[in-house]
Amino acid sequence: MRSQLEGAMDALITVFYNYSGQDGDKYKLNKGELKELLNTELNDFLTSQKDPMLVEKIMNDLDSNKDNEVDFNEFVVLVAALTVACNDFFQEQKKKTK
Amino acid sequence: MRSQLEGAMDALITVFYNYSGQDGDKYKLNKGELKELLNTELNDFLTSQKDPMLVEKIMNDLDSNKDNEVDFNEFVVLVAALTVACNDFFQEQKKKTK
Repeated sequence: MRSQLEGAMDALITVFYNYSGQDGDKYKLNKGELKELLNTELNDFLTSQKDPMLVEKIMNDLDSNKDNEVDFNEFVVLVAALTVACNDFFQEQKKKTK
Repeated sequence: MRSQLEGAMDALITVFYNYSGQDGDKYKLNKGELKELLNTELNDFLTSQKDPMLVEKIMNDLDSNKDNEVDFNEFVVLVAALTVACNDFFQEQKKKTK
């Protein structure tokens, strides 16, 4: 029986490989794969969150990597940063749906 | 409709507050709450993963915080570190269950 936290960690890994496996290096996200992941997986979040520059800023940071690829470790750091930034957002969403 | 990644981010937040809300500061995990979270949510992982000192090392790092409390940002960093460390572990588990 998997706990909620284990399920969340597993989901992070599954989502990453769903997109990284599409083309090129199967274990890294290229720029196209990263954009598709963000657009597909975080669409609601991207359109409704309050700082429209937040993801842009993070994308720019990732772009400074010379091969334009994101490995799993960098992806987890990205998700961690987004989760912290959206902690308040999710808390508000929950209040609305309760 | 929530995506898999949004579900994972939401789960991280939900799990944190389930434990942080038990006593003392509702928005921080004290040492007892953190241990309960790790034991309950990561029990299978803790008993089966290959480096038995990994969590101990992370706990010791967290203990260096003078008030023995972990806020949400520190928790996410912890989960990110654990997820990266366990990427290989989860991949192996998946192969076994397929």
